Amino acid sequence: MVSLKTARDAKVALHAKMATGGPLSTEELQSIDAYWRASNYLSVGQIYLLDNPLLKEPLRREHIKPRLLGHWGTSPGLNMLYVHLNRVIKRDDLEMIYVIGPGHGGPSLVAHAYLEGTYSEVYPNISQDAEGMKRLFKQFSFPGGIPSHVAPETPGSIHEGGELGYALSHAYGAAFDNPNLIVACVVGDGEAETGPLATGWHGNKFLNPARDGCVLPILHLNGYKIANPCFLARIPRDELRKFFEGMGYTPYFVEGSDPENVHQQLAGVLDTAVADIQEIWATARTKGKIKRPMWPMIIFRTPKGWTCPPEIDGKKCEDYWRAHQVPMGDMDKPEHIRILQEWMKSYRPEELFDDSGRFKPGLAALAPVGQRRMSDNPHANGGLLLRDLKMPDFRDYAVSVPSPGQTHTEAARVMGKFLRDIMKMNMDSKNFRLFSPDENNSNRWQDVLEVTDRCYMADIYPEDDHLSPDGRVMEVLSEHQCQGWLEGYLLTGRHGFFSCYEAFIHIIDSMFNQHAKWLKVCNDIPWRRSVASLNYFLSSHVWRQDHNGFSHQDPGFIDHVVNKKADVVRIYLPPDANTLLSVTDHCLRSRNYVNVVVAGKQPAPQWLTMDQAIKHCSEGLGIWEWASNDKGSEPDVVMACCGDVPTLETLAAVELIREHLPELKVRVINVVNLMKLQPPSEHPHGLPDRDFDALFTKNKPIIFAFHGYPWLIHRLTYRRTNHGNLHVRGYKEEGTTTTPFDMVVLNEMDRFHLVEDVIDRLPQLGARAAYFKQAIREKLVEHRQYIEKYGDDMPAISGWKWGSKAQPKTRQRTSTEGDNA
Amino acid sequence: MVSLKTARDAKVALHAKMATGGPLSTEELQSIDAYWRASNYLSVGQIYLLDNPLLKEPLRREHIKPRLLGHWGTSPGLNMLYVHLNRVIKRDDLEMIYVIGPGHGGPSLVAHAYLEGTYSEVYPNISQDAEGMKRLFKQFSFPGGIPSHVAPETPGSIHEGGELGYALSHAYGAAFDNPNLIVACVVGDGEAETGPLATGWHGNKFLNPARDGCVLPILHLNGYKIANPCFLARIPRDELRKFFEGMGYTPYFVEGSDPENVHQQLAGVLDTAVADIQEIWATARTKGKIKRPMWPMIIFRTPKGWTCPPEIDGKKCEDYWRAHQVPMGDMDKPEHIRILQEWMKSYRPEELFDDSGRFKPGLAALAPVGQRRMSDNPHANGGLLLRDLKMPDFRDYAVSVPSPGQTHTEAARVMGKFLRDIMKMNMDSKNFRLFSPDENNSNRWQDVLEVTDRCYMADIYPEDDHLSPDGRVMEVLSEHQCQGWLEGYLLTGRHGFFSCYEAFIHIIDSMFNQHAKWLKVCNDIPWRRSVASLNYFLSSHVWRQDHNGFSHQDPGFIDHVVNKKADVVRIYLPPDANTLLSVTDHCLRSRNYVNVVVAGKQPAPQWLTMDQAIKHCSEGLGIWEWASNDKGSEPDVVMACCGDVPTLETLAAVELIREHLPELKVRVINVVNLMKLQPPSEHPHGLPDRDFDALFTKNKPIIFAFHGYPWLIHRLTYRRTNHGNLHVRGYKEEGTTTTPFDMVVLNEMDRFHLVEDVIDRLPQLGARAAYFKQAIREKLVEHRQYIEKYGDDMPAISGWKWGSKAQPKTRQRTSTEGDNA
Repeated sequence: MVSLKTARDAKVALHAKMATGGPLSTEELQSIDAYWRASNYLSVGQIYLLDNPLLKEPLRREHIKPRLLGHWGTSPGLNMLYVHLNRVIKRDDLEMIYVIGPGHGGPSLVAHAYLEGTYSEVYPNISQDAEGMKRLFKQFSFPGGIPSHVAPETPGSIHEGGELGYALSHAYGAAFDNPNLIVACVVGDGEAETGPLATGWHGNKFLNPARDGCVLPILHLNGYKIANPCFLARIPRDELRKFFEGMGYTPYFVEGSDPENVHQQLAGVLDTAVADIQEIWATARTKGKIKRPMWPMIIFRTPKGWTCPPEIDGKKCEDYWRAHQVPMGDMDKPEHIRILQEWMKSYRPEELFDDSGRFKPGLAALAPVGQRRMSDNPHANGGLLLRDLKMPDFRDYAVSVPSPGQTHTEAARVMGKFLRDIMKMNMDSKNFRLFSPDENNSNRWQDVLEVTDRCYMADIYPEDDHLSPDGRVMEVLSEHQCQGWLEGYLLTGRHGFFSCYEAFIHIIDSMFNQHAKWLKVCNDIPWRRSVASLNYFLSSHVWRQDHNGFSHQDPGFIDHVVNKKADVVRIYLPPDANTLLSVTDHCLRSRNYVNVVVAGKQPAPQWLTMDQAIKHCSEGLGIWEWASNDKGSEPDVVMACCGDVPTLETLAAVELIREHLPELKVRVINVVNLMKLQPPSEHPHGLPDRDFDALFTKNKPIIFAFHGYPWLIHRLTYRRTNHGNLHVRGYKEEGTTTTPFDMVVLNEMDRFHLVEDVIDRLPQLGARAAYFKQAIREKLVEHRQYIEKYGDDMPAISGWKWGSKAQPKTRQRTSTEGDNA
Repeated sequence: MVSLKTARDAKVALHAKMATGGPLSTEELQSIDAYWRASNYLSVGQIYLLDNPLLKEPLRREHIKPRLLGHWGTSPGLNMLYVHLNRVIKRDDLEMIYVIGPGHGGPSLVAHAYLEGTYSEVYPNISQDAEGMKRLFKQFSFPGGIPSHVAPETPGSIHEGGELGYALSHAYGAAFDNPNLIVACVVGDGEAETGPLATGWHGNKFLNPARDGCVLPILHLNGYKIANPCFLARIPRDELRKFFEGMGYTPYFVEGSDPENVHQQLAGVLDTAVADIQEIWATARTKGKIKRPMWPMIIFRTPKGWTCPPEIDGKKCEDYWRAHQVPMGDMDKPEHIRILQEWMKSYRPEELFDDSGRFKPGLAALAPVGQRRMSDNPHANGGLLLRDLKMPDFRDYAVSVPSPGQTHTEAARVMGKFLRDIMKMNMDSKNFRLFSPDENNSNRWQDVLEVTDRCYMADIYPEDDHLSPDGRVMEVLSEHQCQGWLEGYLLTGRHGFFSCYEAFIHIIDSMFNQHAKWLKVCNDIPWRRSVASLNYFLSSHVWRQDHNGFSHQDPGFIDHVVNKKADVVRIYLPPDANTLLSVTDHCLRSRNYVNVVVAGKQPAPQWLTMDQAIKHCSEGLGIWEWASNDKGSEPDVVMACCGDVPTLETLAAVELIREHLPELKVRVINVVNLMKLQPPSEHPHGLPDRDFDALFTKNKPIIFAFHGYPWLIHRLTYRRTNHGNLHVRGYKEEGTTTTPFDMVVLNEMDRFHLVEDVIDRLPQLGARAAYFKQAIREKLVEHRQYIEKYGDDMPAISGWKWGSKAQPKTRQRTSTEGDNA
């Protein structure tokens, strides 16, 4: 192997003789290259070294970590980009953050935060000297330290480097409503193969240059993933150019493996790209008419693992996938120790750090200062910028409920009115947006369009409905984009709500995972300030898929959410409009949570007055006294419900029971905050066992009608005293129907099955109950025949209202054929 | 409103006078247009009519469905494409299937299957006469009928029209290894905004024209989604062209709203596209060197809801998003009835159907016959073509296990050897592929590359490792593509296995949902033949993310899977290589399931000989007698385990107990088939209660170490007699570490915590146990200090082997500081 140091020295010498051939003077070039070498040195050091950080002694086995873990491949490219971005930030006083898709370049971002001083500011123990550098190296991918990829612990990052695919949607989310922010977003060529990233490019159809900042995508074409080439690196240059032009960008190429040459190219291209951006901004902000611009983007084709040994043990390493993780293992071999030492020394640490280990001031001065440092930009710690939303009093949107169940309202539409006015009050603050995959109106938030439009930067036609570049409703048919944009928007200190069909929110299961983990880790990082919660509104839910069928039915997202740490997740199933208003208000004021709100959009009976709703939501669950008849005594049975349709069916069942078995004492409990069911040891919202027992009794049957899969209720309550008497009905994958009531029948969560459950669990009812049960079964047959003929529910069912028969105290039971059934 | 019928008549008359200006003769044009009108008529009829299918009587309210549900918008475009595809199929005797991304065009595909006779063949009740047509109309989006979108019930379909985004990946999956098949794949412009679809286009980098068939993508640019325009319809034509050229296609445009004109354009473009395809095939199959071709694709820009009333109630309808679902509701209005009648009559049904309601033979003759009909093509009912895999005897791959726990093996690598030979034996059958998001080697299947390559149609460099156009290992960094390709491959009658990191399989949660629902519905459709199961191998699992961290840790996919119907899902957690071999063999022989196999890839102790493994897997769970000491009596405690790491920790705990508390009778149960834990009423694999009680006892403590979230074990067992004594340890979101043992400690599933559990549940152990417990706690502190210093597990832990201390019958307990801890 040719000595790396010798080769490099020869190149530099050669270079000194040449004209620079680019925008950088010889001096600038040398400083920039030195800064780059410093970050490369620190990147390698993090992966390999336990001690001897400045290589003042000859490298020995005990200076090297026993287990080598981490990723080198993408780091040198990320490092070069960082140094050059610093140059233009400093020169033009730019506001810039750095989102890196190849998140395994953790060593790179940590290295730069350290070189800029930010790392030592937030972690004083990692000081700017040899001892600090030693700790910096040791902690990387080490127990109790930091992970191999970019993580919440990394200053300057809003983007976890775990799962690939979301860099661009995070970047666009950050750029919205930040008119002076440039989000430099490195897309790995591996990541570019994912679906979410592939549509992420189209964020440019939604970014308004007059109002928003800018995303500067940089495709890091280093050619390889873990063990395969990337296809974007293996298509002709002209095809690649068309691909980006076809997506509405102006691509600039930077290509090469000779550092000096690439430095010059990159400096030139960055100068051009920044000028383009400033021109686009200026044009949009001075001229009246907004036109979608061709934003610049950069294709940066440099070797994977650049500057590591070209070959190790006779195998190609630099510019190949073998450089992806740790390029060289088995450090018990003296030859490998020698190679590592030579590799690290090729960066000439003695020119970069002084004797004490401090980065040389002349080089350090290349970086921006204070909050202009990308590692310290407040946008990347959005809680610093977070301002409360201005909000009207949600009580003003109350639906009038003179008596329970008499009026019908679309709860989601009422929520939409509340959101409309929140939108209106925060138009000037520019810190609130709604996100939806083409379901804003379908999910009944259309009133929001009275005060804003849907955001659109593609062509707009005269017949278009509330579409403009200034809109604050973000609609694109990609749950991934909605989620990614919202995450980026929240993590940079703003507020939002995501409206989605319940079944299809599973599309972003894995993105939710990453965000929930991000929040969990942030809770343990004092310098990370609180951000607004990520709020989901799931409507068009499993029980009302009238226009669709089985494929649109799945309530399992809440099961998925419950798996995450209790201190970051909240789940609400408000049964009507007033409770939904109260929950919405609560979610928008909360911080650092993921709030999942599930509620229907169809006209449905309203149960609680606003006063009752507020109390109910603040308790999270409780007895509905007006529906119960066990006052002052133990009930015979507890009828519990959670979710709007289960609540309706439960109340219809209760009315049947109160009419036909008036002596039975029934307690009705509604659950709006699902986490209340867990013990306090499992979730901070959990109801103490004593209270739970008081509500659900210690030994009476509980018939629980639940919106989702019945298992979840068992899971949340299996430690409760009375769990043995709990019988849950819920969704069980029996769908494909088109009438709401038939859907509940198919899943056996209808009023009749609930009544049967009660009868089956109370043998003391005797023969009278048996007749009643038979009559109920006949009702079900009648129902089936009716819908088979008419394709709709029986009017007696669909038109059922609470209260018409519920006068058990004064009325004699006369027949099993009440017209409410 | 201008009468539609009059306007159309005028156009046709005009046309008759014109030269055709395209490839179709006047006669052909008229027939094709008539066929199109027939399918449009049937599409509208399905959405609206309950009776009077031929409109022989004036339309009245009672002929119309009480609830109008369904989607019209995309149907006329899909209909036109279908008719034209028929023309070229028939002319050139092509083998073609039709995958439609805009799955809400259900009425269209049903209409064509009906016109071609297939529908009546599989559903004789839907006969080809007026009565049959009436039933055809009524059943659509009607209780007990068929859903609004394409579904398993639709003959000719392999693609559920539920969630959007997967049309292209399904299409490519179907085209692989079907050298004469053209998969015409309609991509909705709404769907084109999704991430999975956006990367779906890149399937062309993996399709080998010499070996595979072809996907003919047709972007249906009808401009609108539910309530928004689609951005690909709102960018300049030149940008759109570049977009597709940049993705490696040759785009052909068909644009217009005048049917005759569009007929001619489309016919011309299809002639060209088919010629292109045949030329590409011929070139690839006669010349030696395979080059990636620029496949044709079609941009079909026609109005949404084409041919419906341009305005309804003064609002724009045709060519607008209002035509998306039911263009006109409120059929109690006589005016609306009149409009509907006129609309339907504009298709001139009397010219299309004879008096009895039969499609006129002259028109019916335009369709291909028999299995050339797209609705009857056997590739779309893949079970018809399915052949068993040739498979070697998996016993031949057995790892030698002279005594439990003494040898260490990478289970996944052993599986890879088995797969290698399966691959080899089926090279000629061309019906087996492996799929992975760049994780084939990482997950230790690299031996497969001894007999085949990774498939690649982009540029290949000399240094590339096992990359060729003929490869049968499909690697792309997109879980969506892997899943979609595999689904398409399986549904067309082939076999496969998907290897993925466990945490990231959540990316396809929602795709799994759709496929599981598809399989569930197929189980009730007699003409749908069984297909090979969808097999997942999940490795790099939650407990061994050494190179990564918290973001790569999530065992929740199995929770997600368990929510689906029991008759389609199976979950296996083999504890070692021999059990993994047995499970792999079983999965590849099974049909109509989703099999999830979770196992590690790191060197790990081997427990069972092949004979034992076969018995254990066929039972699904059982006592490991060699690890238990309760022979012939009731145990004091049951130590259960499921998953490789939990098994290791359990056995280490058992050995500690047997050494230090030798009088304790411990029964060790390992679970390989997770579904065995459920009662038979919940899952066909469920263990009867009697057997469960015999194994797990009715009243002894059970300490259960589980691979995933502990809740799942409770959920599966909460109806079992002894559930009250079950204590489960598993993953609880405490991650971010780099040493395997520290990871189990963080999650408190380590051997020491398991021992503590036993002690805590057996108060009879008294003081001696208390000393033992304290010693164990000290061990944990010692461990923490060790790893903080060295970044690795204590050698005594990582080097632990079963059996060194497990001689309880003969050996005296001497100390609590055994060197195995």
